[in-house]
Amino acid sequence: MLTGELPLNSKAPTKFDYSNEPIRSSELIVQKDLPFNAEPPLKSLIQHYITPTELFFKRNHGPIPLIDGSTYVFKVDGLVEKPIVVDLHSLKTKFQKHEVAAVIQCAGNRRDGLANVKKVKGVIWGPGTVGNAVWGGARLSDVLKEAGVPMGLASQLHVAFEAYGDSEEDTCYGSSIPLEMAINPSNDVLLAYEMNGCELTRDHGFPCRVVVPGVIGARSVKYLSRITIQSEESQSFYQKMDYKVLPPYVDEHNADEWWDKMAALQEMIIQSVICEPCSGQVLPPGPVTIRGYALCGGGKGVDRVDVSLDNGLTWLPTDRYQAATRNKHYAWCLWKTTVDSIPDNCKIICRAFDTCGNTQPEFPIWNFRGVMNNSWFVVENVRQQSNTKL
Amino acid sequence: MLTGELPLNSKAPTKFDYSNEPIRSSELIVQKDLPFNAEPPLKSLIQHYITPTELFFKRNHGPIPLIDGSTYVFKVDGLVEKPIVVDLHSLKTKFQKHEVAAVIQCAGNRRDGLANVKKVKGVIWGPGTVGNAVWGGARLSDVLKEAGVPMGLASQLHVAFEAYGDSEEDTCYGSSIPLEMAINPSNDVLLAYEMNGCELTRDHGFPCRVVVPGVIGARSVKYLSRITIQSEESQSFYQKMDYKVLPPYVDEHNADEWWDKMAALQEMIIQSVICEPCSGQVLPPGPVTIRGYALCGGGKGVDRVDVSLDNGLTWLPTDRYQAATRNKHYAWCLWKTTVDSIPDNCKIICRAFDTCGNTQPEFPIWNFRGVMNNSWFVVENVRQQSNTKL
Repeated sequence: MLTGELPLNSKAPTKFDYSNEPIRSSELIVQKDLPFNAEPPLKSLIQHYITPTELFFKRNHGPIPLIDGSTYVFKVDGLVEKPIVVDLHSLKTKFQKHEVAAVIQCAGNRRDGLANVKKVKGVIWGPGTVGNAVWGGARLSDVLKEAGVPMGLASQLHVAFEAYGDSEEDTCYGSSIPLEMAINPSNDVLLAYEMNGCELTRDHGFPCRVVVPGVIGARSVKYLSRITIQSEESQSFYQKMDYKVLPPYVDEHNADEWWDKMAALQEMIIQSVICEPCSGQVLPPGPVTIRGYALCGGGKGVDRVDVSLDNGLTWLPTDRYQAATRNKHYAWCLWKTTVDSIPDNCKIICRAFDTCGNTQPEFPIWNFRGVMNNSWFVVENVRQQSNTKL
Repeated sequence: MLTGELPLNSKAPTKFDYSNEPIRSSELIVQKDLPFNAEPPLKSLIQHYITPTELFFKRNHGPIPLIDGSTYVFKVDGLVEKPIVVDLHSLKTKFQKHEVAAVIQCAGNRRDGLANVKKVKGVIWGPGTVGNAVWGGARLSDVLKEAGVPMGLASQLHVAFEAYGDSEEDTCYGSSIPLEMAINPSNDVLLAYEMNGCELTRDHGFPCRVVVPGVIGARSVKYLSRITIQSEESQSFYQKMDYKVLPPYVDEHNADEWWDKMAALQEMIIQSVICEPCSGQVLPPGPVTIRGYALCGGGKGVDRVDVSLDNGLTWLPTDRYQAATRNKHYAWCLWKTTVDSIPDNCKIICRAFDTCGNTQPEFPIWNFRGVMNNSWFVVENVRQQSNTKL
């Protein structure tokens, strides 16, 4: 089977045929129609520790492929002892099923904050391009063991993924992660066929997707068609000319000279967002509860989230919850703190620290692709109604 | 042998006997006499990619133990199949020798920047508590294999280290790292007996020390006496009540309530320092070369270092060199850029980004122990002599 070719019986649409898109929740904020890109409102997002599938952000680079699970296969090739072809049934029965609660965040989450500084390339996402789900599937490490990977060379090799279906910027969507990351079973890199206890929906990669906990969403390839062990990173557009932090002196005019100089992003960085209240909100008198999410990458934990009501002069502690599995933190952190009242005209600011001491920059740091914006999150113009009675 | 007891024939000093300290370079800036704590001047520090041993910062919590290498042993115990005792000769001959170029940075490097904000606890280090050496020794993973560790439980266990000799805050110096970090051979965690091609000096851990590349210096325990596999982190003062980033609302009055809530630091975070010119320097007219170091942790690379001459409004690129081994970056990065001239009264600022997109905060973020200061590094009051002639 050629790369990008759909499995037998799957509907092979004409290129970029958007007539078979799934139905989506009307609650989502659509940032781009075709391909479909949408995020949930922040208030809905943090109502659940495990994000309901319909509220989970949708990030696509082309039409959603219409794949027949009964004939679906992906192949494993490249620098392996024995190339294999795996169908959905054997993926489910031959390999032990593992579950991991993991947050997935698009590297472009909060791109709007950078677009406010200067024009950026990409969908202008708000701060909702993030979700925390329970993923179920086979461990990539188990599948790679079946094909036989050169373990002794693991630190020098990469696992490249390709997807079924059309994508806007390349022949198909592709991406890679270091082989060393893939073969460590405790990293819980999954070939997932379940999300939140149900079969994957088409929007989230049916019938099978990669889930790389602790890493930017771009590496968790949906509609998996092929896994290749190779000595270089994926040569896909999405690995080589996207999802990189370019320096501030690089824009559309000189970007081409810079792609090869900068690293392809992997591990997520420390992030925190205030989800309630939101800018401009008018609140009743009395105590105010400030809530939000925080996350970081690589299995590290969120060590703390601070809130400031005086422009960063002093900070308040927050209560937070972040699930852990075997000392790793792949799920997100939800946090809150209650204050007696909000001063008029104040900004509410949050910032977080990961367990290594990394924190967020105060101001947005512009980069051409608008990725990895994790500046202090600011909510403005919140007012409380007066409870003064005559 | 009891923990902390010196090997046979080693000189057992009376407690805190400082009469057998080694001779040190007079070039070092001594920050504390007893125990001896000193750092090199920045200008000397970056004259070499591999830091000469005599210029490498010295960080001690007690007198340097006087150990006889011919009778030296350390033991490996705890949750292992077979506790073992290893002497120096078998460490050198029974296990393959590995070398790794790795930067070691004290978590308190640049504590002076936080002490300027508010009183901190600890030696007031400048920005020279860092060095980049070639370490040679056995891999910890090989030694642990010999003792037999429960590999299946690796992600839930810890490797605790203890040191010979007295230490100020506990019965001996102790620290731990996650077992999972220790058993991955590509992390190159060493039981080192060589530094820069020579036997370790007493100041740097003779006869054997731990070297944990990519992690704060506090985990690279010198004068190794014992390695214990256990279900908890080290219970040592140095793991539990030190080397943690406490929140800004925590000081000497309430620190005790906070130690258990915060994570013991491991991976280093992105750091960059301007070493030339230095604040107050008067330079000749003509082009000025700005030089410094940068580093980060966990094997990640320094993706770029930017320099600003206009208070962070715009940034200039720099040339940089950072050695890599099998895709990991454990050595530091030296960088430079040349500008035509320095405007009068300007600040020279640097900031770096790691390959994940983490960067440094603009301002120092005070914490009681004064650790992990990686705010933008600023050089002030540099002037150039005028070349105007009448």
